[in-house]
Parts: sequence; structure tokens; C-alpha cells
Amino acid sequence: MAILVGDAKEADSVAPPQKRRDLSAYSVLQTSRLDAKPSLPSVFHGPFQVSYGPRTSAAGNPEEIEKLFPNLYGQPSVDLVPSSKPTFTEKKLNVGVVLSGGQAPGGHNVIAGIYDYLQEHGKGSRLYGFLGGPAGIMKCKYVEITAELLHPYRNQGGFDIICSGRDKIETPEQFKQAMDTTNKLELDGLVVIGGDDSNTNACLLAECFRANNVKTHVIGCPKTIDGDLKSEHVPISFGFDTACKIYAEMIGNVMVDARSTGKYYHFVRLMGRAASHITLECALQTHPNIAVIGEEVAANQQTLRQVVNDITDLVCKRAALGKHYGVILIPEGLIDFIPEIQQLIAELNEILATSGCDPEGHWKNKLTPPSRALFDLLPHNIQEELLLERDPHGNVQVARIETEKMLITMVEAELLQRKHERTYTNNFIGMSHFFGYEGRCGMPTNFDSTYCYALGFAAGALLQSGHTGLIASAGNLTAPCEEWTVGGTALTSLMDVERRKGKNKPVIKKAMVELNGAPFLKFKSVREKWAVEDSYRSPGPIQFSGLTANETNFTLQLELGALTA
Amino acid sequence: MAILVGDAKEADSVAPPQKRRDLSAYSVLQTSRLDAKPSLPSVFHGPFQVSYGPRTSAAGNPEEIEKLFPNLYGQPSVDLVPSSKPTFTEKKLNVGVVLSGGQAPGGHNVIAGIYDYLQEHGKGSRLYGFLGGPAGIMKCKYVEITAELLHPYRNQGGFDIICSGRDKIETPEQFKQAMDTTNKLELDGLVVIGGDDSNTNACLLAECFRANNVKTHVIGCPKTIDGDLKSEHVPISFGFDTACKIYAEMIGNVMVDARSTGKYYHFVRLMGRAASHITLECALQTHPNIAVIGEEVAANQQTLRQVVNDITDLVCKRAALGKHYGVILIPEGLIDFIPEIQQLIAELNEILATSGCDPEGHWKNKLTPPSRALFDLLPHNIQEELLLERDPHGNVQVARIETEKMLITMVEAELLQRKHERTYTNNFIGMSHFFGYEGRCGMPTNFDSTYCYALGFAAGALLQSGHTGLIASAGNLTAPCEEWTVGGTALTSLMDVERRKGKNKPVIKKAMVELNGAPFLKFKSVREKWAVEDSYRSPGPIQFSGLTANETNFTLQLELGALTA
Repeated sequence: MAILVGDAKEADSVAPPQKRRDLSAYSVLQTSRLDAKPSLPSVFHGPFQVSYGPRTSAAGNPEEIEKLFPNLYGQPSVDLVPSSKPTFTEKKLNVGVVLSGGQAPGGHNVIAGIYDYLQEHGKGSRLYGFLGGPAGIMKCKYVEITAELLHPYRNQGGFDIICSGRDKIETPEQFKQAMDTTNKLELDGLVVIGGDDSNTNACLLAECFRANNVKTHVIGCPKTIDGDLKSEHVPISFGFDTACKIYAEMIGNVMVDARSTGKYYHFVRLMGRAASHITLECALQTHPNIAVIGEEVAANQQTLRQVVNDITDLVCKRAALGKHYGVILIPEGLIDFIPEIQQLIAELNEILATSGCDPEGHWKNKLTPPSRALFDLLPHNIQEELLLERDPHGNVQVARIETEKMLITMVEAELLQRKHERTYTNNFIGMSHFFGYEGRCGMPTNFDSTYCYALGFAAGALLQSGHTGLIASAGNLTAPCEEWTVGGTALTSLMDVERRKGKNKPVIKKAMVELNGAPFLKFKSVREKWAVEDSYRSPGPIQFSGLTANETNFTLQLELGALTA
Repeated sequence: MAILVGDAKEADSVAPPQKRRDLSAYSVLQTSRLDAKPSLPSVFHGPFQVSYGPRTSAAGNPEEIEKLFPNLYGQPSVDLVPSSKPTFTEKKLNVGVVLSGGQAPGGHNVIAGIYDYLQEHGKGSRLYGFLGGPAGIMKCKYVEITAELLHPYRNQGGFDIICSGRDKIETPEQFKQAMDTTNKLELDGLVVIGGDDSNTNACLLAECFRANNVKTHVIGCPKTIDGDLKSEHVPISFGFDTACKIYAEMIGNVMVDARSTGKYYHFVRLMGRAASHITLECALQTHPNIAVIGEEVAANQQTLRQVVNDITDLVCKRAALGKHYGVILIPEGLIDFIPEIQQLIAELNEILATSGCDPEGHWKNKLTPPSRALFDLLPHNIQEELLLERDPHGNVQVARIETEKMLITMVEAELLQRKHERTYTNNFIGMSHFFGYEGRCGMPTNFDSTYCYALGFAAGALLQSGHTGLIASAGNLTAPCEEWTVGGTALTSLMDVERRKGKNKPVIKKAMVELNGAPFLKFKSVREKWAVEDSYRSPGPIQFSGLTANETNFTLQLELGALTA
């Protein structure tokens, strides 16, 4: 039986026993995954020691980062390497762990890795899971992770063992609360599993704890299906592999349907607001007729009209080849990459906040001419959404716009125009899809299961060897797991500063799709062929045994040079 | 190289070489599936003979069926059983095959089964694939199926080897065209792979050919992901197993997401317009909080308001338990099961066809009071859709209504009302999903691969042993494939008549969800537990090897008694 502690009343609201997983309901596959013990990098097969790299700097503005992190700045990254005998005491530790932000497949295995490391190397250690994200730290709501509590979650998707949350620890009071909690639980370590923001927060916590002589060390862990938290020493965030493979399975199926039916254009919007890594990986997995990469749209300063025309041109080109079907991938965040849309939205927010919109539409005269032209170009329902759907601050809710439906409507309108001009004579039927929630909580692939378990072990080892302000990392990931390198990268080395509200804020910059990186170059070299020929590829469902069970994703293979562009 | 024949110009528009599959683009899993030779029922391991059942009747109105099928009516169903020596000449045959209607995983394997049977038992046989469905028969457009053409499609999803179509062979001219084609190709046999309508058409063709002394025999094959073509001797249609497992994988993922996030109600609409078998199977696979079964809604004469209230009641009940999330499954055809909606639509069609709708809304006074009340209950956007989206005949397009979004809006409105009444105090966020096109063309499960291959072999054997007017069938399907029975069921025995336009039309009745059948009873016995407790089950991705690779679906297991309700 799991031990529920902390403020029991509120903790109950997050993980009360009746919300625990019902093992008796598990499918055969779920049950079989419970016993699939992940491999470990060979460094964990015996005694190991810590090897230090050179003093580190920052991703940008090192002087500012040093000012913001006087106690952490410059510390070296570390590698765990085999040694002939144990090099640090295998003392017992009190460790806390928290899941922060959106789900990514494999989170449960990071917790399992920490737990198993502590069991193996720190007999008598205790692991506390903070409930509902960083709020659980601030409110001191937690559950003790026991073997029994952990068991049903091994190699399973989701974050539901302790759930997650999107709160940040920001104000002096909140840092005080966090210190109270770690003092109360006598935590030696805290592992923050999250994305760029959460790892920035982890670094701030590490700095705060050190500055205040709190003994708690903080280790981050790279999580996000979006794939936009990575750097030289953090080759990939966990969850990306599984989520992309789930989306790619569905896209592959839709492609075969498109070919078989011969009359539909499927517009597939894929999760991933800030960067287009998911769309790019899914393109490499499935060979769509078009994959719009937001970073390229931004680099080329494309207008919405141009994006629509590019798609329409291809529809016409394929029609001339007798092909009235296709599959088009669109990143969720496409709109954010089109400068003119950002401009329109800024103007709309201003107008809505001041004079508002009159039903007669005179307000439109307040738009600048380019924004007015763009607004008039938008389909009627999108115009309505922009004006009606607002967030609590009264701002237009860009995230609510169903980009794939907007593009279908605009391509339809453009094709109608070309029909009038007799440059297109066929029928176009667009079908819209959004693949998002299906991928965040899928059963982790063998790669994500193993990677997360190794990250958990790394976090445990980094804490036991006395480190703080590092993000757990593993390298050589396209080799068999035994050959992976394991270590920790100085969080400050990933930092830059951004000016927000007159203050310098440290941030881990989101890793965008690099237009001169191997994955994009590979895509660029083949996309013209994919556009007109049917080179569709079906990765099929994720396999846990057999030939394909240990395939990693293309992005990782290309970035690590295991495949060449 | 495949041989393209027939009217090359139009045939090209269906399967020109540049539309063929690009093997070099195949994923490792696709390639590995190419070589996965399906097992065969043991009857095909050696010589076999035909064993005849008793004279058959019809599913209804036997006298009428006899009148409509004077040459076929009453013929026995047959079983293929092992024999000590060959019992019929392994003569070479000319066989045609056609795919009819919507895609279902496994169709390519039926063709592979026919081809391999003919290679093995009728050296020198030829197999022609009619292009683009029954229109290919009428227009004599076909391709010869060769080993090379077939290879890339083995164990792969889709219908794109020859594509499909929804035309019917109905008029005397069309029957004449069909006879011209089969005469021209000197066809000994024609295999029609399709659903209830297509198999009805197959039976009419068989009757027509026999009545006109055309030598071509016709064998049907049960295809539809909807699962609504089945009978005593046809336990399941192919494609149902794969499609349900693909949807169930996604639903399982969404369930874990719901638990992890704790704040969304996911409304999942599932393909399957006429019957709710897919929704029921997915419910058995995943244990949702609610699964609406259309047949039960119809049997209980539920109103839309009642369906909405049932869902809202559960939202409130779960909120009282601290659970603000859930997963609700809805069959695509729900609206067709609600009598009052059918009534409203009939009235709307009448009004739209006569006086039309005035912008002031006076037309609403022409609705009967119950229809008026129902119309006013509908969300604004659904009202608009009903009035604006029409088919070419001017009728309301029920199929276009996004039922899941409609229900979310209506549940929101009902919860708002309850908030005013202080019987609900929480927040409700509905998320909508439609799972359809992702499932029709997935890689067939081991079950569908094997089942379809056996059906293809059966079709070949039935033709070679001189049969017509049968649907290929296999039995004992929950046992290992070697133990399956194989045979053919008299199509006339599945027939009933329907009165259409003053004429008696033969039809194979769609098999609806039986409310006293084992699958529904099983669901009924556990759904109250599933409603409030979280018994979510994740079947996970379809596996082709390992423990779960040969699991069949729950519907089949329950109906065949391999599981008990």
C-alpha cells in the first residue's frame, strides 16, 4: 500500500487511492510491459566515478548569466565513467521528484530509474513524489514512492502516478515555500522532470538552495514531446520518439487511405506549437506530399497567401498527373511563424482592448492596409474565431485556431478562383485531422523506456555524488544502450537571458528546427520527389519485439550522424 | 512488370505505374510484413473435398427470395474437408476479383490468397483485378495480377492495388456490360470483396450469369470494418479486428492523458454509421466511462435530451468524487438511432424543398412542436449546419454533423444550467476526436492477414469446385488457424426482401448490435463500474510478434463463446 502523506486532504485530490491504476483492467500488452526491465548503460553495471569537463560558459550573455547564478555559473559538466572501485559513499538519500508541464511518454520510467538507483546504491533512501507539479512542492503535497505504488506504472505512458502541473516557482514567497518543503522533508535532492521552462526553474531552485545553504541539490531531466529541449550534450528530450511514432503510424494509415480512395486531401495538424520538430520527424517517417516547417516559413518571411498558394500549386500539379489526393502535414504552431499574422493579431488585440468591434465593421478601417488585406483573406469562420474567442486577458486565442481547417478553406477558395480561370478543372475534397492527445501518453517505445530509465539512474547518481544544477543526460544514443554515455550537463551552460518587463530573465532557449541541420537537409533533398510521386511510407504500429523494436527516430539518427542526409 | 490491359487510358487513371507503391520507400516493418507468410487452415495442407449441408432457406421472406433467385435459391452451404485424395480436377481458371466499397485492412491478402491458391492448384490460371470497383467490371477495366504486382501489397493495408469503388451493377444494361466483360475475359469465376450491398450484388450477378448460361461463377467475401456483415456461418467481416484495435490504441492513449491531466472530457466519435459494433468493441477493449450504443438508444427510444442528460449526470457524479475528466465513446451513426432527430430532419427536408427558410425564422412555425423544441435545443452551429449543408438532392447532410462536438456543446449548456441551480460547481472542458480514416487502411493484424488469406484460398477452392452464389467463410476463428473450418455460405440464405420504390429488393440485412448478445451483455455487466471507477485499459499498439500478436477481438471471442459474458 502506498503511503499518502503531506496535506492529506488536498493530496487526495490528486492521487487518492481510487484514482490509482486498476491492474486487473490491464491489457496483456500492458501487463507484459510491466516486467520488461530496461537495459542500462554499461557504466551502471559496476562501480563508476565522475569525470569533469572544462569550466562552462552560457548559451548567450555569459556575464548576465553569471550575475543571475553566482553560485552555479561556470561549473563543469560531468560524465559518469567506469572505475575499478566505488568512488563515493553509497549513502542513503531523501529525494523528491516532480513532473512539470505536459505529458511525455516515459516519465514514469524516469521515476522508476531514480527509485531503482536509490534502492541499489542507497539502501534506506526515500523517494517522495510531489503531487500535481511544482505546486506540490510549494504546498508540500507529496506521496512516498514505494515499490508497490510504482509497479503498475513501469514502462507505461502517462504522468498519472503523481500527475503534473504548470505552476512555476517564481516569487520570493514561492521560493521560501519550496525551501520550507525541502527542509521539512530533509531532501538531499530534487529531480525536476520538465521542458525548457521547468529546467530553467530547476536551475533557479538549485541556485536559491545553494545561496541559502539549503542542502537540497537539484537535477533536471529533459522532457517534451516537442523535441525543442536539446543541446550538444542533451541530444533529445524524452517522449519525442514515442509521440512521433504514434503520429507517424496514423499518418501512414491515412496515406494508404488517400491512395486507395484517390479523392481526398488529408490536412494533418501535428502537436508542437513552438518548433516544428514533430512535423519534420513525421515527414521523414512517412514522406508526405507537403510538410510545412514553421522555421522555414519564418526564415523565408512567407505570407499566409504564399503558403496557401504553394499547397494549391501542388494540388494542381498532382491533378495534371491524375492524382486527386494527397497528405499535407502542418505544425500546430504554423501561425506563430507567419509575421503578418502576428502583426494582425497585435492590431486586433489593440482594437479589441480599446474601441472594440462595431457590428457594421467600421473597426476594420483601424487595421493597417496589410493587416486589413490579410483579415479579408481569412475564411469567415476564422475571422469570427479571432474576434470572439478570447483568453482571460481579452486577447485573441491563436492556439484555438484550427489551422488545418483554415488552410483547407483557403485552398478551396483559391482552387475555385483557378477554376474560373480554367487552370484547374477537378474536384478537391479536404479532410482535416489533429494528432495531439493520442501521442502524449502512449506506451513508451523501447527507446523512450530505456532512455528514461537511464536518465533516472543518472539523476540518482548525480545526486549521490553531490552535484546540483545539472540536467541528466545520455549520449551515443544510436548505439546499443550498453554503449551509451551518461552524465550531467550544467544547466547554466544552456542559458541565455531575455529581457522581460524590464528585467533580465534567464531562459533555456527552445531548440528550433535548424535549416542547415541534417534532418531538415535530408527532408529538403527529397521533398520534391515526395510532392509528386507517391513515396508514402508506413512506419506501422510501434513494436516492442522483433526487427523494428529498437529503431530510433530519424531526427536523432541524422543529428548524431548515424544516418547521413 | 505488371500487365496493364483493358481500356488503357481510363485504367491508367486508377492504377498507372507511377501510382504503384514505391518499395524503396517502405519502412522496415512494412518490408518485414511482406515476407510474413500467413498460416493456412489445415484443410489446405493436403487434398480436400466438398461436404454439402442441407438445402437452405432465406433470412426472411423465402418465397420472395426464391422468386428473385430461381436458379440459386435453396442451394446448400458447403464445407471444405480433408480427403485422402484430390476430389476435383485442379484445372486452370480465369478469375476476376473486385474490391467494392470502403477500405478494410486485409483486402490485399484476399487477393493474395486467391492468387496463391490458383498458382498452387490451377497452374496456368489467370487472375484479373477490376479497377476502381464494380465500374471496372462494367467498363472492362482491369489489370492482370502477377506475382510481381502483388508482392508489395502482401500483408499491407489499403485497397490501392486495384482500388475500390461504390458503383452498383443494377440496370439491365449494366448486367449486360458485366456479362460482356466476363465473356470477353472468359472468366470462370469472379470474386466480389465487399459489404452487405456488394454481396447482395454478387448474388444478383451469380443469378444473372446462371440464368443467361454465362459460365462465370461468383463468390462473395465479407469485408467491412463496421462489423455489420455477419451471420451464423460468417462470424466476422474482415478489417473489423484491425480497425477496432487501431482506434482502441488511440482511445487507450487518450484515457491515460485524461487521467494524467485530470481536467478534460474526451468525446471520441468512432466510424461506423449503421451499427455500433466498433464502439462496443472499443469499449470492451478500453473501458470508457460511457459508450453510447446506438441500438440501445433506439430500443429505449431515447431522446437527444436524455442522451445529453445521461452524460451530464455522470460528469456531475464524477465531479463529486473529485474526478473532472473522462472518456466517452460515441458511434458515428448515433443521430440515426434517435427517432426524434429523424423526424426533425424529415420536416426540415420538406420545408427546405417547398417554402425554404426565411432569415427571420418564421419558417420554424412550420415544424411540429416536438421538432421545434428539438431544433431549439440544438447548438447554434448545428442548427446552421442542418440548414446550410445539403447534399446534391437538397437534403440535410446528417453525416456531416460532428456529433461529438454537438454533445460537448449540449453538455456544457446543461452543466451551466446546473451551475445556476448550484448542483454543479466545477469546470468542464470537452475535447473532441473523430477516429475513422486512421483505421480503414492500417496494416492488418495477424488475425486479419490470416483470415483474409484463408478467405482468398476458400474463394479459389469454391470456384475450382464449381460453386457459385456463395460467400467465402471460415469458422472456429478463436482457435489456432490450423483448426479453422473453411467453406462457403449460400448468399440467398442471408437474404431478406425490402420494399423499395414499389419493388421487392433482395438485401442482406445489416447485423446490428444485439442487445441480448454476449458482447453487449458483457459491456452492460461492467459499465456502471467503468463509469465512476477508472478501469481504463490500454491495448497499446498492434503487435506482430510476442504475446499479444495473435489476440483476436472481444466481439468475436464473446460471440463464439471463447470468452463468457
